[in-house]
Amino acid sequence: MAYLVGMENMDYQQEQALKAPEAAIVEETSVSLPDELIEAVQEAIDDEDQHRAYTLLDAMSPPDVANLLDKIDGADRKQLIDWFGENFTSDMFLYLSDNVIRHIFSDMNPIEVARIIADMDTDDAMELLEQLDEDFRVEVVKKLSKKLRMHVEEGFTFPEDSAGRMMSREVAVVPEFWTVGKTLDYARMARNDLPDQFFDIFIVDPGYRVVGEVPLDALVKAQRSTKVADIARREIFKIPVTMDQEEVAHLFRRDVILAAPVVDDGERLIGVITIDDIVDVIDEEAEEDVLKLGGVSETDIYSAIFSTVRSRFSWLAINLVTAILASVCISFFDEALEKVVALAILMPIVTGMGGNAGTQAMTVAVRAIATKELSGANALRVIGKECLVGNINGILFAILMGGLTMFWFHSVVLGVVIGIAMLVNLTVACFAGVSIPLFLDRVRIDPALASTVFLTTVTDIVGFVVFLSLGTMLLI
Amino acid sequence: MAYLVGMENMDYQQEQALKAPEAAIVEETSVSLPDELIEAVQEAIDDEDQHRAYTLLDAMSPPDVANLLDKIDGADRKQLIDWFGENFTSDMFLYLSDNVIRHIFSDMNPIEVARIIADMDTDDAMELLEQLDEDFRVEVVKKLSKKLRMHVEEGFTFPEDSAGRMMSREVAVVPEFWTVGKTLDYARMARNDLPDQFFDIFIVDPGYRVVGEVPLDALVKAQRSTKVADIARREIFKIPVTMDQEEVAHLFRRDVILAAPVVDDGERLIGVITIDDIVDVIDEEAEEDVLKLGGVSETDIYSAIFSTVRSRFSWLAINLVTAILASVCISFFDEALEKVVALAILMPIVTGMGGNAGTQAMTVAVRAIATKELSGANALRVIGKECLVGNINGILFAILMGGLTMFWFHSVVLGVVIGIAMLVNLTVACFAGVSIPLFLDRVRIDPALASTVFLTTVTDIVGFVVFLSLGTMLLI
Repeated sequence: MAYLVGMENMDYQQEQALKAPEAAIVEETSVSLPDELIEAVQEAIDDEDQHRAYTLLDAMSPPDVANLLDKIDGADRKQLIDWFGENFTSDMFLYLSDNVIRHIFSDMNPIEVARIIADMDTDDAMELLEQLDEDFRVEVVKKLSKKLRMHVEEGFTFPEDSAGRMMSREVAVVPEFWTVGKTLDYARMARNDLPDQFFDIFIVDPGYRVVGEVPLDALVKAQRSTKVADIARREIFKIPVTMDQEEVAHLFRRDVILAAPVVDDGERLIGVITIDDIVDVIDEEAEEDVLKLGGVSETDIYSAIFSTVRSRFSWLAINLVTAILASVCISFFDEALEKVVALAILMPIVTGMGGNAGTQAMTVAVRAIATKELSGANALRVIGKECLVGNINGILFAILMGGLTMFWFHSVVLGVVIGIAMLVNLTVACFAGVSIPLFLDRVRIDPALASTVFLTTVTDIVGFVVFLSLGTMLLI
Repeated sequence: MAYLVGMENMDYQQEQALKAPEAAIVEETSVSLPDELIEAVQEAIDDEDQHRAYTLLDAMSPPDVANLLDKIDGADRKQLIDWFGENFTSDMFLYLSDNVIRHIFSDMNPIEVARIIADMDTDDAMELLEQLDEDFRVEVVKKLSKKLRMHVEEGFTFPEDSAGRMMSREVAVVPEFWTVGKTLDYARMARNDLPDQFFDIFIVDPGYRVVGEVPLDALVKAQRSTKVADIARREIFKIPVTMDQEEVAHLFRRDVILAAPVVDDGERLIGVITIDDIVDVIDEEAEEDVLKLGGVSETDIYSAIFSTVRSRFSWLAINLVTAILASVCISFFDEALEKVVALAILMPIVTGMGGNAGTQAMTVAVRAIATKELSGANALRVIGKECLVGNINGILFAILMGGLTMFWFHSVVLGVVIGIAMLVNLTVACFAGVSIPLFLDRVRIDPALASTVFLTTVTDIVGFVVFLSLGTMLLI
């Protein structure tokens, strides 16, 4: 399995001799790159042993090479690029993380970047070009072939994250009156004009409007004399070129389709989106939700320290405001806190449990909204259910924590105070956990991004105020 | 677009008359089911107007019908099943959520369930059968055709969540010495024995071991006299039948492939896994991480109240232990809290900010571990980076909150106390946020499930102890 494009000035025996022990590491059936192999490459770089590094990389698949370049540090990466930059296959670049692509391309000149992109389909070329600064991108695009340049330039006129940015312009298409035999003969003859990879042939009318789609397996199963129109699937979803990529992903996922035609305002076929483009979007989309809920904007594991600090700072600053707000609420009860120090000791339990119960409800709600399982139609039912769930768990934990408090602080009243506060806060938390994301979605704010802050504010303030005011009333 | 299987005893004019206004609702280009349509169906059910309901459902695609059945309540669902149970296409059932499938099937007898499953490929049949209780499943399987029964029974011998459970047994396969022409002729002749849907033809040696794979587009582009062996891709990953589905998904995602052969111990071809099976797994996998981080085990939006209460209770109970532990730490400082009530007012800010900063680092780490971007090879570098990020943000927020505190409580010393506590807690939080998931992964505990509890324990205890002990030392 020699993946790197052939390396000059290394004779065959030398190469074989070097292949011995290190290459064996990758032989085990594992779908992820073993850490030992990464360490072996790092050692080879430290020893400045170019041939050993070559042997190791040559045995790796393009995704593994990409994973390696992602994981090693900047200096090691630069060394590998200096040694083997020209040997990497172009599809390896498609597997790199965005940050690393930017790093690598910033050290190259436009001609080198253009050479990497030259043989790609439009969608892949666009994916890499999107990582470049605009000025540099314009320079690179100038060096591309006329056809690819035209497609790429047009691609960049479509909104970011739209179908137009994802689609491939290379489409297999035949007129509706052709037979299966004619289509097969055409595929054989015109093979160089067809996309590198395709799963369906689209059928168009004379106005280039899509009227159906023939999956290749249906084509090879059919008699040569059959009309393609007769075996075409007609109920296909035509994706408007401006549709948002998340909507496109939702469609692919819902209908479990492999490819869909992209059409312009006049319903004319201008491109195709295939499932491999979608897998990335689905991944990104679910990942975005995880990250946003955790208060980070993107996987910043490969980002520079200062950009990480900056992007996280703003989230923490918003949370500081929430925390100060909660503290201001506490400060109203300074007299009670001074007299009954147990209130200060126990109050984090009330807010902490409320926060956790609310987060559970919120997490389910945010995901259900993203996957369209939760919408206006069943909102009331789900809110009702969550209130009940919060209420039941509230009663259980009120009894548990109330009892524990009576035992710990030898005070029945304090136990009653924390019990009631827990019950109220858990119920409110579950209600807020599901209604905040629903409300944000209704007013078109991303629930994953903003729900946590609002929820914490509610559970903190309700928790502190109910607990401390009950404490003031009953204990002082 | 008539999707329902034809309905008896309704004359054509009646049907047309009914189609008028309601059906128009679905005409707009939307990839999700509009709430208005759900409400229209619910109204039709309330009015016991079977024909109106039929008209509405007939205009919907199978995924939309499934989404509708997911969202309406149990009684409405039962009414629709009573009316149209036999009219639903079998693939509609594949789009239902697991809970709803279980509900619907529990009202059916084995013969009815078997009829739904009868025409499916093995993987789809398995997916539905997995939702049934074992006794009921055995009854259903008895009613299936001999071939499907055999495949399904064998499928259930493989471990849960393994490749063997996901694979389809229907594979397109030809010997390596065949030509493209012979293969095309065979596909046409044997079309009824081929899978319903396939993208690749696998090439096997006489021992039925996979030696390569011919994508259909390569097949239709090639000359008839070419040997399939000459156009086959040879570098294919053969999936062992016992491989875990998450590993399989990682492989598909990494290499962007559409289909991969599944092999037994002797490397013999026994099935195929296709990208449409994988999209579900990828979705589930990312979703699981979101849900686990939020402290819930599954999307319980369609679960019964008591099972929701029970599954969430255990997470809250674990968190209660953590919270009590933190309170015990606070209780050691009761004297300081009594004397300086400002400590009680400010302490939630220190722990809250630590918790947030730690969650940011943890979220990134958990996702990076799941996507294999973070492993032993770059662990130290990432931990170092996170400590620095936490430290820098710690300094910034120490200055901010320290200044604010001096102003609020007119005490320079209190400002210094909270500043130092913030700095220490944010740094420790970022360190813990990335090293806890890495450690859990190393000892083979799921980081998404357990990281939050450990992290909260660390940030709460460090926050309270540092802040209150500094307060005790400097203010009393």
